[in-house]
Amino acid sequence: MGGKRRIGVGLIGTGFMGKAHALGFTIAARVFDLPFELDLVSVADISLDGAEKARRSLGFRKATADWRELLTDPDIDIIDITTPNLLHREMALAAIAHGKHVYCEKPLAPTVAECAEMVAAAEKAGVVTQVGFNYLKNPMVFLAKELIESGEIGEIRSVRGIHAEDFMMDASAPWSWRLDPRSGGGALADIGSHIIAALRHLVGPISSVLAETIIQVPARPISRGSSEMRAVEVDDITRAFVRFESGATGSFEANWSATGRKMQHDFEIYGTKGSIVFTQERLNELKVWFAGDDIRSRGYRTIWAGPEHPPYGAFCVAPGHQIGFNDLKAIEANEFLQAIATGSRPGTDFREGFEVQKVVSATYQSAKTNTWVQIGNG
Amino acid sequence: MGGKRRIGVGLIGTGFMGKAHALGFTIAARVFDLPFELDLVSVADISLDGAEKARRSLGFRKATADWRELLTDPDIDIIDITTPNLLHREMALAAIAHGKHVYCEKPLAPTVAECAEMVAAAEKAGVVTQVGFNYLKNPMVFLAKELIESGEIGEIRSVRGIHAEDFMMDASAPWSWRLDPRSGGGALADIGSHIIAALRHLVGPISSVLAETIIQVPARPISRGSSEMRAVEVDDITRAFVRFESGATGSFEANWSATGRKMQHDFEIYGTKGSIVFTQERLNELKVWFAGDDIRSRGYRTIWAGPEHPPYGAFCVAPGHQIGFNDLKAIEANEFLQAIATGSRPGTDFREGFEVQKVVSATYQSAKTNTWVQIGNG
Amino acid sequence: MGGKRRIGVGLIGTGFMGKAHALGFTIAARVFDLPFELDLVSVADISLDGAEKARRSLGFRKATADWRELLTDPDIDIIDITTPNLLHREMALAAIAHGKHVYCEKPLAPTVAECAEMVAAAEKAGVVTQVGFNYLKNPMVFLAKELIESGEIGEIRSVRGIHAEDFMMDASAPWSWRLDPRSGGGALADIGSHIIAALRHLVGPISSVLAETIIQVPARPISRGSSEMRAVEVDDITRAFVRFESGATGSFEANWSATGRKMQHDFEIYGTKGSIVFTQERLNELKVWFAGDDIRSRGYRTIWAGPEHPPYGAFCVAPGHQIGFNDLKAIEANEFLQAIATGSRPGTDFREGFEVQKVVSATYQSAKTNTWVQIGNG
Amino acid sequence: MGGKRRIGVGLIGTGFMGKAHALGFTIAARVFDLPFELDLVSVADISLDGAEKARRSLGFRKATADWRELLTDPDIDIIDITTPNLLHREMALAAIAHGKHVYCEKPLAPTVAECAEMVAAAEKAGVVTQVGFNYLKNPMVFLAKELIESGEIGEIRSVRGIHAEDFMMDASAPWSWRLDPRSGGGALADIGSHIIAALRHLVGPISSVLAETIIQVPARPISRGSSEMRAVEVDDITRAFVRFESGATGSFEANWSATGRKMQHDFEIYGTKGSIVFTQERLNELKVWFAGDDIRSRGYRTIWAGPEHPPYGAFCVAPGHQIGFNDLKAIEANEFLQAIATGSRPGTDFREGFEVQKVVSATYQSAKTNTWVQIGNG
Repeated sequence: MGGKRRIGVGLIGTGFMGKAHALGFTIAARVFDLPFELDLVSVADISLDGAEKARRSLGFRKATADWRELLTDPDIDIIDITTPNLLHREMALAAIAHGKHVYCEKPLAPTVAECAEMVAAAEKAGVVTQVGFNYLKNPMVFLAKELIESGEIGEIRSVRGIHAEDFMMDASAPWSWRLDPRSGGGALADIGSHIIAALRHLVGPISSVLAETIIQVPARPISRGSSEMRAVEVDDITRAFVRFESGATGSFEANWSATGRKMQHDFEIYGTKGSIVFTQERLNELKVWFAGDDIRSRGYRTIWAGPEHPPYGAFCVAPGHQIGFNDLKAIEANEFLQAIATGSRPGTDFREGFEVQKVVSATYQSAKTNTWVQIGNG
Repeated sequence: MGGKRRIGVGLIGTGFMGKAHALGFTIAARVFDLPFELDLVSVADISLDGAEKARRSLGFRKATADWRELLTDPDIDIIDITTPNLLHREMALAAIAHGKHVYCEKPLAPTVAECAEMVAAAEKAGVVTQVGFNYLKNPMVFLAKELIESGEIGEIRSVRGIHAEDFMMDASAPWSWRLDPRSGGGALADIGSHIIAALRHLVGPISSVLAETIIQVPARPISRGSSEMRAVEVDDITRAFVRFESGATGSFEANWSATGRKMQHDFEIYGTKGSIVFTQERLNELKVWFAGDDIRSRGYRTIWAGPEHPPYGAFCVAPGHQIGFNDLKAIEANEFLQAIATGSRPGTDFREGFEVQKVVSATYQSAKTNTWVQIGNG
Repeated sequence: MGGKRRIGVGLIGTGFMGKAHALGFTIAARVFDLPFELDLVSVADISLDGAEKARRSLGFRKATADWRELLTDPDIDIIDITTPNLLHREMALAAIAHGKHVYCEKPLAPTVAECAEMVAAAEKAGVVTQVGFNYLKNPMVFLAKELIESGEIGEIRSVRGIHAEDFMMDASAPWSWRLDPRSGGGALADIGSHIIAALRHLVGPISSVLAETIIQVPARPISRGSSEMRAVEVDDITRAFVRFESGATGSFEANWSATGRKMQHDFEIYGTKGSIVFTQERLNELKVWFAGDDIRSRGYRTIWAGPEHPPYGAFCVAPGHQIGFNDLKAIEANEFLQAIATGSRPGTDFREGFEVQKVVSATYQSAKTNTWVQIGNG
Repeated sequence: MGGKRRIGVGLIGTGFMGKAHALGFTIAARVFDLPFELDLVSVADISLDGAEKARRSLGFRKATADWRELLTDPDIDIIDITTPNLLHREMALAAIAHGKHVYCEKPLAPTVAECAEMVAAAEKAGVVTQVGFNYLKNPMVFLAKELIESGEIGEIRSVRGIHAEDFMMDASAPWSWRLDPRSGGGALADIGSHIIAALRHLVGPISSVLAETIIQVPARPISRGSSEMRAVEVDDITRAFVRFESGATGSFEANWSATGRKMQHDFEIYGTKGSIVFTQERLNELKVWFAGDDIRSRGYRTIWAGPEHPPYGAFCVAPGHQIGFNDLKAIEANEFLQAIATGSRPGTDFREGFEVQKVVSATYQSAKTNTWVQIGNG
């Protein structure tokens, strides 16, 4: 450990994402040469029991039922927020006010205004922020970006993006917090933000959208098996046409009731010299087609992740062994810690979360008005 | 041949589709129990030389440079039109006026009004018509339809359709008849009509669309290598949201500059009990997911075409041997001949071509106005 | 037709392969510039009824229940044999004796001695012969051969071949002619000959084999549902190690009880500079990996058949449309007719059928003795 | 931590596998409810510098250049051996002599006699052992086993196994410890042991083998770029036919020069009622075919790993997110720790390592004699 400075983490939330973040930090500490000695200080949950259980399983030193305790804990440098969307703003602003760096799950906040407030606070306070757009933290997506930036597939002309799963397909599944309109929306806000982030990452700023939203299941039982129904007000499906500042055009779809799909986070990018096809269903592969290849033996190349695609090599020295979802979280955590050490901004900081939310918001607005809605980037 | 009545075919056009139609008839005569003895009477091309060459290679008895000769040839019962889109109407109306059955390549005609005129003429004359929506004539697409109609994938909720190729990706490729706006459009009219036909076939009538069209290459050389440019006025890409009369919603894209794609005629259909995924890139396969399968061993089934998927068995008694594109044309030809014999209507007759054209037209209109456009079906 | 010489075909056998051959000739006449005007003269079947039915459906002029009539028919230049294996020798020798060219289904004959006799007779008579190794007549297999011969994948080092289907998987399926040991064997002779032919075609002469044969179902009902059983004496599975004259080594498997497999005719060829992977399950694709590609974007290329892969372009001017099994037969027929016209030898003539049979025979011998058996090539 | 007993780990070796083991333990502690509080006590490497570096990066408390120090460390309960094969025996015996549980990388030891000695020592001492056959620790492989054991694919009839990579394909790659014949062999011992373990795991004991070994590159530079060559005496490729005690038959291939392959650890298992196809290239998928499915919609199901396939759910509550190679190591570590807690034997303990080595050894013996070699199981 030598001269390495310690960095303390306080985690809020112990569900799916709470565990994934804890794992991300833990794996990052083993595979990357972190700039800090990592200290998992304290974990907060609604119940002390839940917090204590998470403390033990996730490897934290302390547990609390009051997330505000983390703010004043002098051992804690980073507040890591994995609670429902509705709570992000309050927690993040409080953390920033206490001078903490903030790692927050996506989407950043339900409204653009809240996101703007969070960005302003973070930038004024000079803290480093990170948002959990984990699908971007994939060596194969880094490769896609590199192939685009190097010009190897030429100028991007058209794009398709999808994020579809089926966890809401069952009409008898009860109403839940995911359906609370105060969260800022449904499928688009929840999972569509991932594909918007991917398109922005790879193709650049989106200038305008024309969209529609669909509610497939208009009412759901208030609890499993109940005959009392509650109206659903948020989108099960959102589809949008997008125009990029670069001139490229495309489309995306967010869908949480695509029966049979478990992780259809896909993009297809068509350039003047080639194309790139990716599906998160096979996250260790990237398909690339080069117009410049000999016509006789030209075809989509299925590239398998290997040490030649950083940071894959941090996880395994041999190609073809594959990384998993939690490893993406480790890459995300490492990027955050490196940014803290160097005082730089991760590519998916609060400002990027804000930009993504602007597209989410514009998309919902377009769906209401059936008109193209401009997005003010920058 | 015994008591089988002879049926005579007159083919107009000897290009890609002319050859495919001739092959379709020839193969159909060998694999199906046709209701007629087939007689390939005469072939017409712009040049007598071309016609004569096609006569020899495609197996016709006569050749002519004047397509009108076919109209009055008493041996000819069917006029088969494979000329550019612009010419379909005149030829079809003339054929109908002479009491001929008409087999016409898609799209039926550049405008809805012309299509309507063609339908009215055909129906009044009582002739049988067929339009070349060949991708529907696939045992795997028949299976998809059967799985939908049987209710095995439940009520259809959402749909995606794509028809993308890359033959216009090269910006230096010269202006051609495909870009002539009088043909009724660009990528949408030319290849998008295939995916519209597929969505209608599988999901039913489309009630409205919201669309955008993109011209990617605004001007092209008037001939290969020329520095003189001609403006492109038709779409390279069209994207649309669609609503079906059934309540299902979806999207489609037509794109003839999707670098690397040679035959991305794809559809994904999500129902309440399962889903269906197809790509023409692997036309002998259909992927189906059933919610009712045991959860532990549930997954997309990759079904290979076999004799259990009619009419595959007509081509081969053993499964897994595969049919090709020209075999789809044979199925199309057989369906037409059977309809003539029974006096019934093929599913893809002029009326269906008219319905598809209504969607094409509404899509272009929507792209101009940026509003939802209703399609009057029926 | 002009100056084209007529060539007459007499077909013996009207089952699966009889129909496929007739289709092959018919399609070939439409897609290739054949050196002859094709005349489907007469078809012979065991029953006159069957022959007559085939005459009508397959487009022949005459029908007969006596195959010997074809021998003396002056209109017939080619005798096309699609009967069970046991009958090939007698029919082929008779045809050769009458100066006919002979097209014969694989395997050529049950024993090496019979094959040798057939080769000697054909070569002495100066007739042209062709054997139905149809899977080799694939533009993608031609591409594989070209990539090997050009040195693009370097020196071939190791090879795997499989031909597996499941039509004999059901133990209650009755005993049939396929199980008659006089036919020369079971799965190896019947379908394994295809993969041996493929390995010879691509990697060159096989010098020795070490093999085992397995009888999975030791007895079968004498007819469907019967309780009387008949012993099975031929292989359900044969596995072999092979050594090539070039120094390459490999293995193959023939298996007709591989549950779920319909056409697993696969090969994988590993060279010093690349590798080639093919499955007949996707016959319009070839996968190729080049060591020389940039390491970052290196991966198996999935090449789709297109006009740049002759003779695909004869079937379709546009890439990605796909050919089917009967089209392979058309390529095979064309190759035969071109060889007749030029007096050359097709790559899969009787001599090649004889060489394949030598490997089949050596493989069975090795399985009996459990020793490496040399194959005298040449 | 409560009442949980502490368990201490001493790791020997800090290379590829050393890191993977450390990660496995670390991840296991976060995702599983381990029966112990895990204590990564000390790490040994040849150099103190290497050990110290690993201590920091892998999270151990102490570092040493003398692995024997771990034996007498009272905090250490488990000796974890990730050194080259040649060293396993000495280290394991020493650990056992000190009453430590032993976790050892595969293959267990170069000779069957050494393995027997190690098993005897471990069983006499009553310590728990584990061997690193990590590819078996995959939820999809567990599912495969479950489908076999439940009888869902019927009686297994035939099997294929491959473990192929290409890390030795380059003939200019220098001689290395992997080529030292004292290690017990080449590709078969090194990577082929994985596929033998998989076949045993899924299909049961192997009773006999008939094999061949190939040296593709007969000599290699003694160091990179050197002109001095050293003969290669171990196999680059080994192929074997295998017979199982159950009556099933099959084949396997080990190949470390299969150009383009990075992780072709594949098996295909054909039963009387279905079949299972797996490739480690897509480790989160299993393909299964059921004869009992409706014939019309029957096809290989591509099953994606999800919470319904334990222990996937420990890593992620949502399906489709995927686990990676290091997660397989975590499952392996957890299994070991659970066995220690309950005093049971992991399925891949030293005895299983010994059984695998017996097959490796018999395979080499068969290749020398070209005869079937029996394997005494049990």
